[in-house]
Amino acid sequence: MSTSETPLAEPSQLIAAAYDPQLVRELGKRMITLLADHLSHVGSGKGPVLNWDEPSHNIDLARAELEAGNASVPRSADSLLARFDELLRQSLSRGQNLHHPHYVGHQVPASVPLAGLFDSVTTLTNQVMAIYEMGPWATAIERAVVEQVGEAMGFRSGQFGGLITSGGSLANLTALLTARNVALGDGWSAGLTGRSPAPVLVAHAEAHYCVARAAGVLGIGTQQVVSVPLEKNRRMDVNQLDSILADLRTRGVPIVAVSAAACATPIGAFDPLVEISEVCRRHDVWLHVDAAHGGAACLSAKHRHLVNGLELADSVVCDAHKMMFMPALCAMVFYRNRDHRFATFEQTAPYLFDPSAPGMAEYDNGMVNLECTKRAAAMGLWGVWSMFGSQLFEALVDTTFERAQQFYELLEEADDFEAFCQPECNIVVYRYLPGHLRNRSPEEIDRFQLQLRRAVVESGEYYLVQTNLDGRSYLRSTIINPLTTREHLRGLLDCLRKWGSQT
Amino acid sequence: MSTSETPLAEPSQLIAAAYDPQLVRELGKRMITLLADHLSHVGSGKGPVLNWDEPSHNIDLARAELEAGNASVPRSADSLLARFDELLRQSLSRGQNLHHPHYVGHQVPASVPLAGLFDSVTTLTNQVMAIYEMGPWATAIERAVVEQVGEAMGFRSGQFGGLITSGGSLANLTALLTARNVALGDGWSAGLTGRSPAPVLVAHAEAHYCVARAAGVLGIGTQQVVSVPLEKNRRMDVNQLDSILADLRTRGVPIVAVSAAACATPIGAFDPLVEISEVCRRHDVWLHVDAAHGGAACLSAKHRHLVNGLELADSVVCDAHKMMFMPALCAMVFYRNRDHRFATFEQTAPYLFDPSAPGMAEYDNGMVNLECTKRAAAMGLWGVWSMFGSQLFEALVDTTFERAQQFYELLEEADDFEAFCQPECNIVVYRYLPGHLRNRSPEEIDRFQLQLRRAVVESGEYYLVQTNLDGRSYLRSTIINPLTTREHLRGLLDCLRKWGSQT
Repeated sequence: MSTSETPLAEPSQLIAAAYDPQLVRELGKRMITLLADHLSHVGSGKGPVLNWDEPSHNIDLARAELEAGNASVPRSADSLLARFDELLRQSLSRGQNLHHPHYVGHQVPASVPLAGLFDSVTTLTNQVMAIYEMGPWATAIERAVVEQVGEAMGFRSGQFGGLITSGGSLANLTALLTARNVALGDGWSAGLTGRSPAPVLVAHAEAHYCVARAAGVLGIGTQQVVSVPLEKNRRMDVNQLDSILADLRTRGVPIVAVSAAACATPIGAFDPLVEISEVCRRHDVWLHVDAAHGGAACLSAKHRHLVNGLELADSVVCDAHKMMFMPALCAMVFYRNRDHRFATFEQTAPYLFDPSAPGMAEYDNGMVNLECTKRAAAMGLWGVWSMFGSQLFEALVDTTFERAQQFYELLEEADDFEAFCQPECNIVVYRYLPGHLRNRSPEEIDRFQLQLRRAVVESGEYYLVQTNLDGRSYLRSTIINPLTTREHLRGLLDCLRKWGSQT
Repeated sequence: MSTSETPLAEPSQLIAAAYDPQLVRELGKRMITLLADHLSHVGSGKGPVLNWDEPSHNIDLARAELEAGNASVPRSADSLLARFDELLRQSLSRGQNLHHPHYVGHQVPASVPLAGLFDSVTTLTNQVMAIYEMGPWATAIERAVVEQVGEAMGFRSGQFGGLITSGGSLANLTALLTARNVALGDGWSAGLTGRSPAPVLVAHAEAHYCVARAAGVLGIGTQQVVSVPLEKNRRMDVNQLDSILADLRTRGVPIVAVSAAACATPIGAFDPLVEISEVCRRHDVWLHVDAAHGGAACLSAKHRHLVNGLELADSVVCDAHKMMFMPALCAMVFYRNRDHRFATFEQTAPYLFDPSAPGMAEYDNGMVNLECTKRAAAMGLWGVWSMFGSQLFEALVDTTFERAQQFYELLEEADDFEAFCQPECNIVVYRYLPGHLRNRSPEEIDRFQLQLRRAVVESGEYYLVQTNLDGRSYLRSTIINPLTTREHLRGLLDCLRKWGSQT
């Protein structure tokens, strides 16, 4: 495009600039420089973790940039580069820095940055799916990674099937919709009205909120979720499950599925899947396992015992954007029986599915996916795996699980901290209990934990989260940045002490 | 990282390489070069549109790369760069080239490449949402673009609300779930069982398949979708709608919503929204408008009349990854009454939502979105808008709508082509009817269209799609690459003639 400062007033000039490959080249190089510098900066622990600011202020700033765009048309390539630079710097300075080693918060990883580069290829060229034709390579890489992960879980090659969708909530919804349709026969076409007795969904008492949500979405009703009590280690109690299913069967209540967890969100407890699958088999009930977080343990020789039995489930969800350290979103759904993929939906869309090539339905992702147009979400995973092999994922699981053990040891050694329990994976739940808190009421101690967390988070020094167990408030950390060291975690305790003395 | 050829055998070495900012810099530069070259190549009409290959062959190739990754650990930075280059070249050579001017297929655009650069920033740093804390800037830019688009639609500032989600199907599902909950009172908690009479969803007879799917997913049942007959221009017949609603109300049948289209997929017909909203208001029924494709017309002075009345709907869906030319996925949901955002779900998730900061719920995206962890999907739209202003989107709408008129004129001028109707937007439906076909049966003519399309698509010369109207097969093109010219469209007719003589 022009290097002069003539305004791009004509629509055709605006379009030519926005689609100019030379501009992609120039702005792209700037982007890579800014990103590499940013990752180097935050990765070495400099600057804040979270750039805290009030929502209203951030929204005002974001809106002002849009209005600036409306008010003045861009001019030369140099002006566009300067504007791009400004917008990127602002964006990089106002977000959450997951790649900072002090990020020990939610189950969202410091993702492998190279995955983002592979993702960029599909984003810039807008590779999508719905039907095979629209994304032949996108479809192929999705199939390839689903096959490899499914095989690592222990599913039988050629017998299982799967897909990738936008997030764990959507993945769980998809699998539970399939289970609903299988359990209720004509539920898809006739709806759920007029059924008696009303069907239920049986779930881990601390299942992720998206499981109860699925019951709400699917017309089952959130009141129709039967919670299975937990053992003291917060795993599903298998004997209680057996009694619940026996009672429901006796009363003729339709059971959509049992939804187990590997692991459950609050403390990372892994359900005993082999025993649960045996109970489900005996009562002829669909077993779904939400392994969004823990499923990737199947790639670790050391930790795969935690997910023994995954291969016995009817459906499994595993998020590559959690413990495979991919950027959001890349959630996998697996069906032990591949034919179940086609039990999720029925639809007519003659503009999509070509009757002259019926064999293609097998490869048309829209047939099995809640999404129609879908991102090529597997690209980052496929690219990183092809470069580093599954040994990288094993290293990431082992390293972060080990780091959580070290954090637990630090908590145990400290007089003023209390770990809720020894972690099974990389989720650690704890409280800070300095001397002056000893005689306070449980409510005051709860409030202290929440206020302390908020102070630390807003300071940008560390990022951690909170949870509530048996009515009490706790601090909670997921070690999900592989570059977080034992020393960083020791620093977290000191940081909590510092802010605790001011809270 | 090391420049030697020592294998990266240790887990810590693998992780250090995968997270090395210097490697991001080197590989990122290579990526930008390959992408700019690729966009320049396909943008100038070189090479095939679709790289057609059999699914099984593509899957074998994709899987072989994963196995190569498992078999050998990477070594020096140079080897990693060479491997990266190889994987990117393969990916770019096996997909669908939407930026090729001969791409005139589905409603998936040749996206603004610069949007992909903005997206890359959030992907490489893994900026997400669910709660405000996790993505303060991601949340802010989403709010800002939703506000601007909603205002352009005519919603009242401060009164409407909205959100962004992963795709039009999910967006329609979200809005219809909200409508269901509002219409049925305790449907969320109690489920849909035991209701009599069974509720219905009233929809445009040619609504996108995701609308009937939503009925299937939500427990309403696909049989409970009442189709409103169309006028001869394939818009919803308002008098028929009035009769249907009156009859349902008389019989006491609960009505979840009326789902109108702006525009409907098959030929791009825009429903008369002002009249429909009046009928819905009179019968006290929620009006939902699937404006996934056509909603962006509100940004064009010339074409906004097509979507007059959007601002009267209770909910509206508009995909920025269609006529705002963003890469997938960026689908917007709007509610005229912002309070309705909180009618979609109810949930408990103490590890997410902080009771010590209840005001934050307003900004916690997970409260209103089917997704929990969510990509910062607005980044590309916010960035491109901030650089070029809304006038770029107006230029894109106007240019592609105009090009479709030119294509229609070419079809009308040709003796051997037949347009189904004059397009209202950028979707054109037509048939190729050479002399030798004149005496064939309708079934043979249908088969010819499908076979011709398949031959052209697999040749890579052009990409177009098919549809079925009133039982007959048609060719169908969306002009959704702004660099497709009249001459390219004239070339499409010649291409169809060439392949038609061999079909």
